[in-house]
Amino acid sequence: MPAPLTTLPADLSPTGWGDPARRTGLPPHATGFLREELGATVPTLPAGPPALTPSALPDEVAAALRDAVGDEHVLVDDDARLLRAAGRSYLDLLRLRSSGPLDAPDAVVLPGSAPEVAAVLRACIDTGVAVVPFGGGTSVVGGVSPLPGRFPAVVSLDLRRMDRLVRVDEHALTATFEPGVRGPEAERLLAAYGLTLGHFPQSYEHASLGGYAATRSAGQASTGYGRFDELVVGIELQTPAGALGLGRGAATAAGPDLMALALGSEGVLGVVTSVTVKVRRVPAVKRYEGVFFRTWQEGCAALREMEQERVAPDVARLSDPDETRSHLALAGTGGLKGRVGRLVLRARGYRGGCLAVFGWEGTESGVAARRKASLSVASRHGAFVVGTSVGDRWEHGRYDGPYLREDLLDAGYLVETLETSATWSRLDATHEAVRRALQSELPRAIVMCHVSHLYAHGGSLYFTVLAARDEDDPVGQWQRAKDAACAALVATGATITHHHAVGTDHRDWMTAEVGPLGVEVLRAVKATLDPTGILNPGKLIPDLEP
Amino acid sequence: MPAPLTTLPADLSPTGWGDPARRTGLPPHATGFLREELGATVPTLPAGPPALTPSALPDEVAAALRDAVGDEHVLVDDDARLLRAAGRSYLDLLRLRSSGPLDAPDAVVLPGSAPEVAAVLRACIDTGVAVVPFGGGTSVVGGVSPLPGRFPAVVSLDLRRMDRLVRVDEHALTATFEPGVRGPEAERLLAAYGLTLGHFPQSYEHASLGGYAATRSAGQASTGYGRFDELVVGIELQTPAGALGLGRGAATAAGPDLMALALGSEGVLGVVTSVTVKVRRVPAVKRYEGVFFRTWQEGCAALREMEQERVAPDVARLSDPDETRSHLALAGTGGLKGRVGRLVLRARGYRGGCLAVFGWEGTESGVAARRKASLSVASRHGAFVVGTSVGDRWEHGRYDGPYLREDLLDAGYLVETLETSATWSRLDATHEAVRRALQSELPRAIVMCHVSHLYAHGGSLYFTVLAARDEDDPVGQWQRAKDAACAALVATGATITHHHAVGTDHRDWMTAEVGPLGVEVLRAVKATLDPTGILNPGKLIPDLEP
Repeated sequence: MPAPLTTLPADLSPTGWGDPARRTGLPPHATGFLREELGATVPTLPAGPPALTPSALPDEVAAALRDAVGDEHVLVDDDARLLRAAGRSYLDLLRLRSSGPLDAPDAVVLPGSAPEVAAVLRACIDTGVAVVPFGGGTSVVGGVSPLPGRFPAVVSLDLRRMDRLVRVDEHALTATFEPGVRGPEAERLLAAYGLTLGHFPQSYEHASLGGYAATRSAGQASTGYGRFDELVVGIELQTPAGALGLGRGAATAAGPDLMALALGSEGVLGVVTSVTVKVRRVPAVKRYEGVFFRTWQEGCAALREMEQERVAPDVARLSDPDETRSHLALAGTGGLKGRVGRLVLRARGYRGGCLAVFGWEGTESGVAARRKASLSVASRHGAFVVGTSVGDRWEHGRYDGPYLREDLLDAGYLVETLETSATWSRLDATHEAVRRALQSELPRAIVMCHVSHLYAHGGSLYFTVLAARDEDDPVGQWQRAKDAACAALVATGATITHHHAVGTDHRDWMTAEVGPLGVEVLRAVKATLDPTGILNPGKLIPDLEP
Repeated sequence: MPAPLTTLPADLSPTGWGDPARRTGLPPHATGFLREELGATVPTLPAGPPALTPSALPDEVAAALRDAVGDEHVLVDDDARLLRAAGRSYLDLLRLRSSGPLDAPDAVVLPGSAPEVAAVLRACIDTGVAVVPFGGGTSVVGGVSPLPGRFPAVVSLDLRRMDRLVRVDEHALTATFEPGVRGPEAERLLAAYGLTLGHFPQSYEHASLGGYAATRSAGQASTGYGRFDELVVGIELQTPAGALGLGRGAATAAGPDLMALALGSEGVLGVVTSVTVKVRRVPAVKRYEGVFFRTWQEGCAALREMEQERVAPDVARLSDPDETRSHLALAGTGGLKGRVGRLVLRARGYRGGCLAVFGWEGTESGVAARRKASLSVASRHGAFVVGTSVGDRWEHGRYDGPYLREDLLDAGYLVETLETSATWSRLDATHEAVRRALQSELPRAIVMCHVSHLYAHGGSLYFTVLAARDEDDPVGQWQRAKDAACAALVATGATITHHHAVGTDHRDWMTAEVGPLGVEVLRAVKATLDPTGILNPGKLIPDLEP
């Protein structure tokens, strides 16, 4: 019998992101830039971790859970509970650095198989305990918050022991995984077959495949590889009402697509116990390149036309002027080979412009041909290729954002992101409306934005907000800004979330997103699959009106 | 006030397909081939149309419907009722050529707007009448059969008056249509903007866009353009419980995709009142070409690799040896430029091989480049290009299949199709199992098959069955064969339907397709959106066990 797995290399640090050694601290030029832009800060956050509220797990529940998975796979120690006490949103990080007491799950249970997941659910139904399915814990929308709902206790159902690559079909190019496999491990397992999933969200180093499915994740290369929900061709969900196995054949017209109900179900309808995904052969070549546009409008037009003409890169990210300016300032040189690069850009009229990163993956000849086709469209809109050093720099740091966030947090800043998608016709209006909304609540903030996922009819917008933190009311400071931004999204016809999912933070916006009748449909499905309501209370589906 | 629209150029003929003038009759060589293969027939089918059962529309229902849509849009005459009495499956055609009496809707109601659809539903709820939403009437799975369920009467809700192109977004390349627009009219309306939907199922000349959405249609060019469910980016559904409007932004992670519940809902959950679809610029060039493979396995491998290497044609259809042989025999020359072409093929070892049609659409240079890439892969598997005459011949006759079917029906044959999809790993096994199943019930049948829709992980299989009709029990003869084929699909992990949908004919196979719990979910959604169960009773969702 293996020892209980309480931590893994892929685990988040108890109060922040991953390996603390990866933090670099803010360089002096960044500190200077931020002080100039955002004003002075007087950071007062405790380092954390906070004290936890004591476990309130009734003995009969503990006994039932131990029966379900074995004694060693039911954990009630504070280290285990803290690790599942919060996701990693800005508000989560504030909580994790408070003095507490912090609400945490009353126990952590680690099933090793789908039947054990079923046994855990049965035990929780029988004893009346809420269950929060837990993958990598990287939710930034409150998706893993340990809310008990109307139940006296709540357990975290951590899927890490279900970490196998179950099956590879090299002919159909699909792979079946258990849900607890993390991104790097999935790639390592597939690499043995010369295959890749190609799904690289910023949370890649920690997030799990079950979590990708449950939240409809999108990766940095999803323009080329597809969103995670587009990669899934089969899924198994263990629900309190039984197992649901979906995905026959290759495509179907057998009624509504129930797989689409499992994807994005956020642990509210069931627990993902298996996911079959499309995979691809590992590309021989990956080429990432920096490209400048004179204006946001020209850059957006280039992205749109590349996608509509089916010659888009696999990675296509376009920063708006404020993000471009801030990134170059925070990076010091901007990766443009120093003074010479900057002079070239200025001379050609790109000062105040927009930096894009384009990436192509595939065979050498394929990448060359596709790059030529992409840049041919981009050049119609004044694209100026600044070379692979910018692209390589982006690739090298593509998972570092959360570490920078911790440095900023320590330095007294509010730092958070939010994202959406809009049709190309409304992209500008949404971009402007969200900026205005955020700046109405945070007048001195830097609001940065990039387009990072392309569709024929629209694109995503990813906003990053930086401001001096209001240490008296840091939660309210952000919530007011976030509410204003969400209202702007609804008003402009954009979606409330493109890839962060709903959790607690977007839950009450779901009525605007799918209408009151859409919410009723979700409630009906929930009542069928989870009749007693033990699964992830308080997430995704708005409460009934009082 | 315009006159009531009882017929349109796009209407089906009362007992068959479209314009009777398009029927050519079976040429002598075809007649000879069929007699040799299938044996002699003694056709005894009446020409139809049959007598209809009398309309049983209660007066109060008629009054309520007239209130909802105006007197002139409620039709109770037999011509109007006959036109909505059946779809166009083989069994439907047998019914339409019986002496009757044939069940028909008790009335036909023609709403002109979403509010009028709502008013019709309200009237039907209030008076307790079943409603069958009706688009083009081309269902081949019983989707429009006028079943009253537990209600005393049933009305056909024909959407033909809702035939507008509501909005074109030339920037996002989307178009919003009312549901009653038929395929050719949609293309005509879009052509004014230089745009195309690119959705060309065999039913194209008659089927409606609302029907495409409600049945998850796939077109002949869906390998390139995408299935209809992939083209839809917004949908409005009028349900008995209210309106459901879905599709914000460009892509979303806001919970489960409820749009995927509306797509494929087959009039059971609501009435599609608006659909917003991706469109493309009209291609400058369309090139269709015939390609021969020595074996089915080589042809399938070529299709698979083209798709997995992302160089598939927009149209890719591969006939198995029996379909190739039969098509060439029925066509007389096979379009291979006569004797010389046949000699060439035989000499090179393609006798007994498989004919494919590949099609590329786009700019001249784009088509040339993509054709080269496709054929480069195909040539690895021994592809022999026989030229555009075969391709052009296919394109010219692409909507003629249903006319040939009528000629075959008149000549005493059973002729029906069924279709599925399977992963590439299971495609051969499914192909073989379905052939065996059909031939176990119809020992002397010709069973033809082609792959016609490609996905990275699999493809569709479309079977056509020809046999001498058993005039004593034509219905039972086909039903036994169909049941055997469906059982084979389930046993090999294939889907029960790739693009024909569920209707009545596949309804009881849905439990195998999505599991008993999946059926429960569909029932729960139905109960929420259609609490009294007036919408399309007897379709899609299996009845509760007695």
